[in-house]
Amino acid sequence: MFQRFPNNPILAPATAIPTRPDLSVEAILNPGAFRFNGRIGLLVRVAERPLQEPGWLSTPILDPTSDTGIRILRLRADDPDLISTDPRGFTYQGRDYLTTLSHLRLAWSDDGISFSLDKKPLLLGEGSLESFGIEDVRVEFFDDCYWLTYSAVSEFGVGVGLISTRDWHSFERHGLIFPPHNKDCALFPGRLGSQYWAMHRPSGVGPGGHFIWVAQSPDLLHWGSHACVATTRPGLWDSERIGGGAAPIRTAQGWLAIYHGADDKSRYCLGALLLDLDDPRRVLARSREPIMEPVAEYEKFGFFGDVVFTNGHVTDGDDILLYYGASDTVTCGARGHISDILASLR
Amino acid sequence: MFQRFPNNPILAPATAIPTRPDLSVEAILNPGAFRFNGRIGLLVRVAERPLQEPGWLSTPILDPTSDTGIRILRLRADDPDLISTDPRGFTYQGRDYLTTLSHLRLAWSDDGISFSLDKKPLLLGEGSLESFGIEDVRVEFFDDCYWLTYSAVSEFGVGVGLISTRDWHSFERHGLIFPPHNKDCALFPGRLGSQYWAMHRPSGVGPGGHFIWVAQSPDLLHWGSHACVATTRPGLWDSERIGGGAAPIRTAQGWLAIYHGADDKSRYCLGALLLDLDDPRRVLARSREPIMEPVAEYEKFGFFGDVVFTNGHVTDGDDILLYYGASDTVTCGARGHISDILASLR
Repeated sequence: MFQRFPNNPILAPATAIPTRPDLSVEAILNPGAFRFNGRIGLLVRVAERPLQEPGWLSTPILDPTSDTGIRILRLRADDPDLISTDPRGFTYQGRDYLTTLSHLRLAWSDDGISFSLDKKPLLLGEGSLESFGIEDVRVEFFDDCYWLTYSAVSEFGVGVGLISTRDWHSFERHGLIFPPHNKDCALFPGRLGSQYWAMHRPSGVGPGGHFIWVAQSPDLLHWGSHACVATTRPGLWDSERIGGGAAPIRTAQGWLAIYHGADDKSRYCLGALLLDLDDPRRVLARSREPIMEPVAEYEKFGFFGDVVFTNGHVTDGDDILLYYGASDTVTCGARGHISDILASLR
Repeated sequence: MFQRFPNNPILAPATAIPTRPDLSVEAILNPGAFRFNGRIGLLVRVAERPLQEPGWLSTPILDPTSDTGIRILRLRADDPDLISTDPRGFTYQGRDYLTTLSHLRLAWSDDGISFSLDKKPLLLGEGSLESFGIEDVRVEFFDDCYWLTYSAVSEFGVGVGLISTRDWHSFERHGLIFPPHNKDCALFPGRLGSQYWAMHRPSGVGPGGHFIWVAQSPDLLHWGSHACVATTRPGLWDSERIGGGAAPIRTAQGWLAIYHGADDKSRYCLGALLLDLDDPRRVLARSREPIMEPVAEYEKFGFFGDVVFTNGHVTDGDDILLYYGASDTVTCGARGHISDILASLR
């Protein structure tokens, strides 16, 4: 279905300059993708942390009261209040933390294949709701504006923030548009009738799960009419959690949404959903088998292995350039055809 | 602080007629409260389930494809796929269920103390997002309308639904205004400036907790600008979870919000928050000690003991009649003075 770029990974931690000399870039992953002034831009997540010392666990937290803007939470690895079972996060004194602090940084390309990464961040977390960083942005252009939806992470939870820009120089922050716990939000391009639509992925405790929902808005800032469009499927590759990728693609057959799904071994694959053009709450088709699985070396091994995860693509007619994070470590690309994905859904 | 009604509990399961002869009312609890045509109304949650047989666990689920509108999920108590550790819910084959199905029913009073319960439900869950029932409604009157915010529970999660009525005969359903996991939503009475405001209680996985948030809306249907106003406090009575009660009360000092908090033993008490009149994101004061604790026999023992939980009150000048669920079993009332609650916050 997809042909991986021969130059994968196209962005790797070793080539990224950290924001401070005492931090190291652990991962550069999960880019939003867009076109601007004839080039293709990736807005990638850069995940940093202090160099880890044996016997200690340390993670950076944004803190405007610190003179460097960051404080380091440094814990003894054998602290009885520390529970560390996942490379991506840990629990300390009953509260959950991330092991890395992420910002968003631009990379540019003329051909969509070779990218040059900026030396500095474009966007850092701001305010108390982003003190654990900002992650996994979706970028969509409509109404003369680029709209960025991203995970805002803090001690208060993980929600969805919205930022807009027209020129990639000045940015307007619109606050948290979906409260915790929510991720994987992508805006549909422009209004359908009178309303804007978004895909989002609320997660909770008790009944429910990590399912894909849609919502409607009159103004992109305020959201309602929430409806669940897809749930996890026991026994299949997307049995434990699913979440939308970048903005759904308008096709003659319907809105084509590429999504990720994980099984009980936290193996992340990609699949597709086809949603009704007029009412995206109606699911017309869904991948039975993945359209992409972690098979390459760089997709199987890394910070968190066995992961392909996408939140960015650009299209040109039937061609799609899919950008994705592999093993929660590097950024990769693949070429495909929209018609092939649609054919797989029949 | 509060004087409990001498006739507590004012509503008990034994006096409620079940919706079907094969169901029993397990609890009648957590009423919304309002004034209408010179009377005080309670919109209570009535929780039903089949009479439990030894060796079996059974729970009703709304199902429009069944000729009775309900199907019964009936499981062997020793089924290895069943995990049952909490009287309020259980897990079966990895999915969470409730042990009871709740609807909303009216009770009326001339004096606010003695209530007469309707024989039939007023509102049942409707549609796939309410198949596990509707619960814990807050009722607030403004803009010539009663606005009902309630927990909508289903296999897709627990979210907040909105219903409006002018006459308590015809009702308009406005869909899910907060996606899972969210509960304990109360609308502020009318606009503050250009926006409506709500308190809500999102819960998630990972960072965050069961905290109280506020949001803003131009139209009551679509919500954004989410902000966290209160978190749990380690070591105190509200260390594990908190959630708002009924609509905050406007006082000269600020918005007075009565909320519930639970500790690590799931003991539920009530406290108060004072929020800035112009910007409810600003917390002016918060109870250090509970303003109500479960001490009466009917608050300590029942379906889920050691609980006082409020989502309804009516006020008359400085007087407040507080209605609350006790032990997740019965409905009770207490009298108090707003000035005393405010004084306790100094």
